[in-house]
Amino acid sequence: MDENCVFCKIVSGQIPSTKIYEDENSLAFLDINPATNGHSLVISKKHYATLLDIPGAELEELILAVQKTGAATMKATKADGFNVLQNNGAVSGQVIHHLHFHIVPRFKNDSLNLSLGGKKAGQAELAEWQKRIKKHLK
Amino acid sequence: MDENCVFCKIVSGQIPSTKIYEDENSLAFLDINPATNGHSLVISKKHYATLLDIPGAELEELILAVQKTGAATMKATKADGFNVLQNNGAVSGQVIHHLHFHIVPRFKNDSLNLSLGGKKAGQAELAEWQKRIKKHLK
Repeated sequence: MDENCVFCKIVSGQIPSTKIYEDENSLAFLDINPATNGHSLVISKKHYATLLDIPGAELEELILAVQKTGAATMKATKADGFNVLQNNGAVSGQVIHHLHFHIVPRFKNDSLNLSLGGKKAGQAELAEWQKRIKKHLK
Repeated sequence: MDENCVFCKIVSGQIPSTKIYEDENSLAFLDINPATNGHSLVISKKHYATLLDIPGAELEELILAVQKTGAATMKATKADGFNVLQNNGAVSGQVIHHLHFHIVPRFKNDSLNLSLGGKKAGQAELAEWQKRIKKHLK
């Protein structure tokens, strides 16, 4: 537990939350600033800052909690779809530095725009990034 | 395999891709329309439309591939952070209906905005959604 972490305080009960799912290692609760109805966060009970910090076995459990919560959220909200968004680092939009997955129900004509808006890359550029990334994937 | 699916054709080799990671069940390749340098997609080799369709054991393997690819991407791109975005359903921005996780490296002053821009919800509203979602999480 990180004593200065809002999500750790939610796990310990020092700060209240609207819990929707809980198991041994994971917790899901509603976002207090929902982007759409039913927007929730699924977190690891233990404090890890980002996706790169959590041990694999715990990440496996956490993603199953995301899947379960997503399925229930779809049924409950009658949404047309949903986004799973997981931010790592302040530059990415991460505000609370305790690993969390956003589950954001989506509805026709909601006002949310999560478009990545990419532009077509050339083959040489892609080949260069491929080379650089693969070097770290051995 | 879904014969009309672009990602299934990438898995089978009928359509070329810039692969960066591969294991028995997962594949990662660069997005041809990158939002930022090193933007990749991590997919299940088997065809599942969304996060809700993949069996748990396969999802566990897939998220480990996401974690590995994310770690390598951070090193290779020297990014300041990264987003993991996983869209379910056309309304959410899913274009290829084969389960995939975007890994989007983020850099100070890049032009991407994935803000969820939520507004503070009242306690009664949160309690109502809590009740509805929990009903499907038993």
